[in-house]
Amino acid sequence: MPEPDFDKRGGLLPAIAQDAESGQVLMVAYMNREAWRHTLESGLATYWSTSRNELWVKGRTSGQVQHVREVLVDCDEDAVLLKVEQERGVACHLGYASCFFRRVDQDAWHVIAPRLEPPSSG
Amino acid sequence: MPEPDFDKRGGLLPAIAQDAESGQVLMVAYMNREAWRHTLESGLATYWSTSRNELWVKGRTSGQVQHVREVLVDCDEDAVLLKVEQERGVACHLGYASCFFRRVDQDAWHVIAPRLEPPSSG
Repeated sequence: MPEPDFDKRGGLLPAIAQDAESGQVLMVAYMNREAWRHTLESGLATYWSTSRNELWVKGRTSGQVQHVREVLVDCDEDAVLLKVEQERGVACHLGYASCFFRRVDQDAWHVIAPRLEPPSSG
Repeated sequence: MPEPDFDKRGGLLPAIAQDAESGQVLMVAYMNREAWRHTLESGLATYWSTSRNELWVKGRTSGQVQHVREVLVDCDEDAVLLKVEQERGVACHLGYASCFFRRVDQDAWHVIAPRLEPPSSG
């Protein structure tokens, strides 16, 4: 089975989670080969936590599970796009639908989305 | 002016370009502080080319310029999302609208989008 070129960037590639319905970009995390394989086998978005240095099945503790509907790879085979169904509609550990809840306007950042839940452990 | 946490990951952060109208994810590249500032100042998506090790104003040679409509930062301040208007509607140097033109199906990758132009230098 073909795989992205994990060796190219030291074993970790960026993986984007996008809401399969709305198209909203939910988050960016990293995948190594183990996370890639776990994602395909389980159907649950699985990353490599670079802070905890461990396999991270998104939402296993928080309930913010991402059910993978489609997996895409880019031209250079060094980035992954997951189209997902986001459990509870909240991807961000701070309680927002998307981790990209701040917009850069002139010389400040502005929160542009409502907080839907209290912060969680992600 | 606040900036993402470039030091956190050795100076380079992933930056996603998303079509501002359709929501299609076009590509993922990397930004350093110089690329970030150039993007904000010029309004043109600017990355750091990790293969050529130089500032990369997307489309400067190919014409596949990305006009930035919105800049968003994520919760951890270590990823950037650009909502862009893609010149000519082609982001991928291989001539596809998006670099994510292949889908993983079972044990193979399938091209799921038409090639709109001949390959370019990106």
